[in-house]
Amino acid sequence: MNPPKTDARRHHDPEVRGFASDNYAGAHPEVLAALALANGGHQVAYGEDAYTENLQQVIRSHFGPTAEAFPVFNGTGANVVALQAVTDRWGAVICAESAHINVDECGAPERVGGLKLLTVPAPDGKLTPELIDRQAYGWDDEHRAMPQVVSIAQATELGTVYTPEEIRDLCEHAHAHGMKVHLDGSRLANAAATLNVPMRTLTNAAGVDILSLGGTKNGALFGEAVVVLNQDAVSHMKHLRKLSMQLASKMRFVSVQLEALLARDLWLRNAGHANEMAQRLAEGVRAVHGVEILYPVQANAVFARLPHDVSERLQKRFRFYFWDEAAGDVRWMCAFDTTEDDVDAFLAALKEEMAR
Amino acid sequence: MNPPKTDARRHHDPEVRGFASDNYAGAHPEVLAALALANGGHQVAYGEDAYTENLQQVIRSHFGPTAEAFPVFNGTGANVVALQAVTDRWGAVICAESAHINVDECGAPERVGGLKLLTVPAPDGKLTPELIDRQAYGWDDEHRAMPQVVSIAQATELGTVYTPEEIRDLCEHAHAHGMKVHLDGSRLANAAATLNVPMRTLTNAAGVDILSLGGTKNGALFGEAVVVLNQDAVSHMKHLRKLSMQLASKMRFVSVQLEALLARDLWLRNAGHANEMAQRLAEGVRAVHGVEILYPVQANAVFARLPHDVSERLQKRFRFYFWDEAAGDVRWMCAFDTTEDDVDAFLAALKEEMAR
Amino acid sequence: MNPPKTDARRHHDPEVRGFASDNYAGAHPEVLAALALANGGHQVAYGEDAYTENLQQVIRSHFGPTAEAFPVFNGTGANVVALQAVTDRWGAVICAESAHINVDECGAPERVGGLKLLTVPAPDGKLTPELIDRQAYGWDDEHRAMPQVVSIAQATELGTVYTPEEIRDLCEHAHAHGMKVHLDGSRLANAAATLNVPMRTLTNAAGVDILSLGGTKNGALFGEAVVVLNQDAVSHMKHLRKLSMQLASKMRFVSVQLEALLARDLWLRNAGHANEMAQRLAEGVRAVHGVEILYPVQANAVFARLPHDVSERLQKRFRFYFWDEAAGDVRWMCAFDTTEDDVDAFLAALKEEMAR
Amino acid sequence: MNPPKTDARRHHDPEVRGFASDNYAGAHPEVLAALALANGGHQVAYGEDAYTENLQQVIRSHFGPTAEAFPVFNGTGANVVALQAVTDRWGAVICAESAHINVDECGAPERVGGLKLLTVPAPDGKLTPELIDRQAYGWDDEHRAMPQVVSIAQATELGTVYTPEEIRDLCEHAHAHGMKVHLDGSRLANAAATLNVPMRTLTNAAGVDILSLGGTKNGALFGEAVVVLNQDAVSHMKHLRKLSMQLASKMRFVSVQLEALLARDLWLRNAGHANEMAQRLAEGVRAVHGVEILYPVQANAVFARLPHDVSERLQKRFRFYFWDEAAGDVRWMCAFDTTEDDVDAFLAALKEEMAR
Repeated sequence: MNPPKTDARRHHDPEVRGFASDNYAGAHPEVLAALALANGGHQVAYGEDAYTENLQQVIRSHFGPTAEAFPVFNGTGANVVALQAVTDRWGAVICAESAHINVDECGAPERVGGLKLLTVPAPDGKLTPELIDRQAYGWDDEHRAMPQVVSIAQATELGTVYTPEEIRDLCEHAHAHGMKVHLDGSRLANAAATLNVPMRTLTNAAGVDILSLGGTKNGALFGEAVVVLNQDAVSHMKHLRKLSMQLASKMRFVSVQLEALLARDLWLRNAGHANEMAQRLAEGVRAVHGVEILYPVQANAVFARLPHDVSERLQKRFRFYFWDEAAGDVRWMCAFDTTEDDVDAFLAALKEEMAR
Repeated sequence: MNPPKTDARRHHDPEVRGFASDNYAGAHPEVLAALALANGGHQVAYGEDAYTENLQQVIRSHFGPTAEAFPVFNGTGANVVALQAVTDRWGAVICAESAHINVDECGAPERVGGLKLLTVPAPDGKLTPELIDRQAYGWDDEHRAMPQVVSIAQATELGTVYTPEEIRDLCEHAHAHGMKVHLDGSRLANAAATLNVPMRTLTNAAGVDILSLGGTKNGALFGEAVVVLNQDAVSHMKHLRKLSMQLASKMRFVSVQLEALLARDLWLRNAGHANEMAQRLAEGVRAVHGVEILYPVQANAVFARLPHDVSERLQKRFRFYFWDEAAGDVRWMCAFDTTEDDVDAFLAALKEEMAR
Repeated sequence: MNPPKTDARRHHDPEVRGFASDNYAGAHPEVLAALALANGGHQVAYGEDAYTENLQQVIRSHFGPTAEAFPVFNGTGANVVALQAVTDRWGAVICAESAHINVDECGAPERVGGLKLLTVPAPDGKLTPELIDRQAYGWDDEHRAMPQVVSIAQATELGTVYTPEEIRDLCEHAHAHGMKVHLDGSRLANAAATLNVPMRTLTNAAGVDILSLGGTKNGALFGEAVVVLNQDAVSHMKHLRKLSMQLASKMRFVSVQLEALLARDLWLRNAGHANEMAQRLAEGVRAVHGVEILYPVQANAVFARLPHDVSERLQKRFRFYFWDEAAGDVRWMCAFDTTEDDVDAFLAALKEEMAR
Repeated sequence: MNPPKTDARRHHDPEVRGFASDNYAGAHPEVLAALALANGGHQVAYGEDAYTENLQQVIRSHFGPTAEAFPVFNGTGANVVALQAVTDRWGAVICAESAHINVDECGAPERVGGLKLLTVPAPDGKLTPELIDRQAYGWDDEHRAMPQVVSIAQATELGTVYTPEEIRDLCEHAHAHGMKVHLDGSRLANAAATLNVPMRTLTNAAGVDILSLGGTKNGALFGEAVVVLNQDAVSHMKHLRKLSMQLASKMRFVSVQLEALLARDLWLRNAGHANEMAQRLAEGVRAVHGVEILYPVQANAVFARLPHDVSERLQKRFRFYFWDEAAGDVRWMCAFDTTEDDVDAFLAALKEEMAR
């Protein structure tokens, strides 16, 4: 049972990085090391293992004594499990038009959860009480899917960040209407790093009822957790996770990754570093004439508008995506493993291509 | 970025093993080593990475040139994606009453896929053409969910194994009725090891249209694949996987595990070893008066009937599950990491407890 | 706006009757007359009309002061709305293998409601506490769809009838396990007529929580009602009905039919007559050598076994269905409009064909 | 079996009419008369009756030789069956934000059909190729629910009407992208009457693939039909209807109503009359200072904006609904049974209340 002696099975160049997605990055070495420690011997499957138990303590240290984590595989799963947990069969979800759950899940909320999404345009990706009100009505009207939860993302899909006060206002507004609040925190660490506040300040302290806590983008191989913050809002989370096909048999390997990120400060180091790289990138871009930055750069994403042909040439040198190809909008993401050299090389290439 | 220097984060004793489930085992060291090699740098997310590409070659080496793998997270996901792929909205699945998809998925096939399961009692877990015929009718009858696929498991939930001829007969029978065949191969490796045949002999060579290929029980941390064997039977697998919430963003980490198992002979070594341990266990059990073995031991499971109080005392020493508590039936599973000493110690304990 | 003066639009011979189904019959003339009275002028749509309000009083006169009716279109709709009302997303339904919801709904409970059906063989179509126990377990096990409701039919799909005591025992048993009881009463009137008891004796007085009350087979053109008997067991029935696509806009025309049947004794006359015709038929059949009656004839159905070729010849003279073609089993249904002459002519034909 | 001799069961005043909804009206007397003619005797259930067969001829006379009708219960059912028929599990529907399927079905398309609705704002309720393009992209992107059908309503939810050319352009545009076109024709008769064209001009002649054809608002008690215009676009409609809980057992009573409306000119008389009443109403309203008509009055609806207190006083005299209460917008609907006197009385009341 020896590991392979050479790199014959390494199919990629580990030195190549781009700006396409924080999902293009691999896992942080500490996460891999934690996996190795959790390996060996037998542990109870499906979540009754020592690592998942320990994760609960770590989660409570972040989110308070009543928080409870339900590890799942991916962000789609976390969001759809969480949203089902706070809706009835007749429930609907108020969210931004640009929300990941609306535009990037192939309809999983609708198909798997039977959830109706009630969307509102949110120019910077952030909901407000006023925007919520455009869809928050008709609770007694059986013809209308009942608004039961407001779902926000922190950071948003557009790389913007809510202040704690903004989240508190949204939660108060939602609760006043009898609605729950779900927070899609696939990049919650980035928002906390930006604002320099504990994650709880942005979640349960602000009134959030249920959280999708991201691990993958933060440096795990895979793995997220639905974190129940308001136990009164939910029941039978384990059944919901199972029927949503998000129950890992060897759950210790999900839980230990989240523990590796969250038990000390790895989550913050990783997110903070990605944010810094985005700031460095944004600063450099601002100095390039003809490239417009589209939204406040508050997390690890830079959205920009530049000539289409420049983007196409640049994409041959660094991988990244168009966000709105017709408008010429692109998205540049920084990850926990983005280096200053990566950013500087990218900026140099951008300048070159703009100058051609 | 140093890994932790001590085992402070190791929460379990890696020397403890039991007979509860092959999911209680961890990952094979070669799988962990492969993960490490796949780490670092950037790879395209969501399946366009080099590891997933390479996995396709490995899969084709096992299942022929038209086979295509769609890595997913877990067995529930693999089965529900595969079954949706070969059914219409009005389709139904013929399976054994004891099938995992029927008894152990919290209704995920029904809830996520809208699938009706048409079950037949199968005393040893194996379907036959005659058993299929109990549900194979009524294709023109709109009042009946239309039987469109027969789902079998190899090895079965009861640890029994179909011969290649038996599978071929089932497939011919199903195809003659216009139905497809799905094989739940969460333990396909064990069946192949038992029969000493390539996996293709039990799948596409026998007529199987679509396969759930297990990785987790075979030594991965997590990860399975839907393997399309009959391309004419399916379309848009990528969309189905995504909407079923089974699309891994950092897919390289699923694919490389499957590659580690399948590229050489690790899959066979792991499965063969687990099978041998089950044979050793069964042989020992047969020598214990008062303990009855319930089904042919053809894979890595031993089902037995013994006095209830004996089982309860034994469970305090080795972890395992009742299968039918009222009847006194238990299940003992061997894993890739079960040792001869584990088996012998368990047999000694069994004899002791039977003698009290 | 004159009605057509001739029968040019009558496409059928109103004198032809058969034994295929109580759904082959038309509507009782009193029902048609009631429709005409409810017509004209404007009434609030979607259930806030005077006819639906009045129906509530009629329902309470049958089922007590807390009963509430939710008119729907058809039996599939009534059952799936009712079952959703008493289950969570993770819930399952214990029912007989032969239950209409299991064999005759094209999977609507699974597809529309996401419901898992946990079936048990019931030779005469009737569940017992012992049969329920075969599926009543595992409430804490997230791998198992949670048994939350027992669904029985009265009369059953096989024309048999539960005594009030049997229903009470089933309800006590179910409630003791924390499960609710649903009664599929598409032929509840027939059972009540057979037993000569009020409908409440077979439902809320026996502990039933929610009822699908049939109208169509009892003499309506269409229309059933979900009747909530235990208000604590449900909520938001109106939303459930709407999202299940069972909300009639011009609901007065559903409600008035149910009122026409239920306000006086039309429901009982119709059902009692159909039952009598079935008894007359059964009595005659018993006198025919070579024809076996399969189940106790307790409602309006006669199931019989006879030579296949006889059935085929007989079907050319009177329409009816094979129930199990391989076994030679057939079903003969009587309706509210079946006449003694119909029965006698059919018996004469049966004797002729048996004698050939 | 005599009908009741008095009106004791008449719970409403047939002389009272309002402007709330065309669903508040009853059934046209010719429809009732047709029901009576279809009654009596036995007819095959579930659609193999003579009335449904005859309806097919009537449908073909309107929509050409390949058209096929599938009678269903209500508009929600018609739309959700039709949309499922032209989508895969991964499909999505492009429609106007104001579409009935989006705002008035309690999420039935999402919950029952698993359908993702991709909405675009359409100020007058009408889609255009340009508006479609806002959502018509990403067919190869598994992260996006795949746009497979464009759904338009004729007349729209706002009482506006597409010209045949506009529909043709939409269809060509949709087809060029490989999408099908569904037309929600709950008020198709009104549009045809307005434009003075046959219904086929607005449907199959313009390229529409599948139609929800309304009966209820046109003068039936209940009943609509999914009309398949492009047989290549669909399969197994009967199964889809059944599993969607829209299969009537005594279908002759749905079919004969549609036949009564469509076989001669009743559909057109009813719709034309309702339209005329809306024109009369609009003309009168335009003469009232301070009341603004919001959209072109092209069918049987008048949308208006007036002072909120006036509306509230007026509602005490005539029933109607606010459309957007905050804005002071109301909807006044005319039905087949609205009289000139009704309109004139309403206009007089409006003037009085505006003058107070």
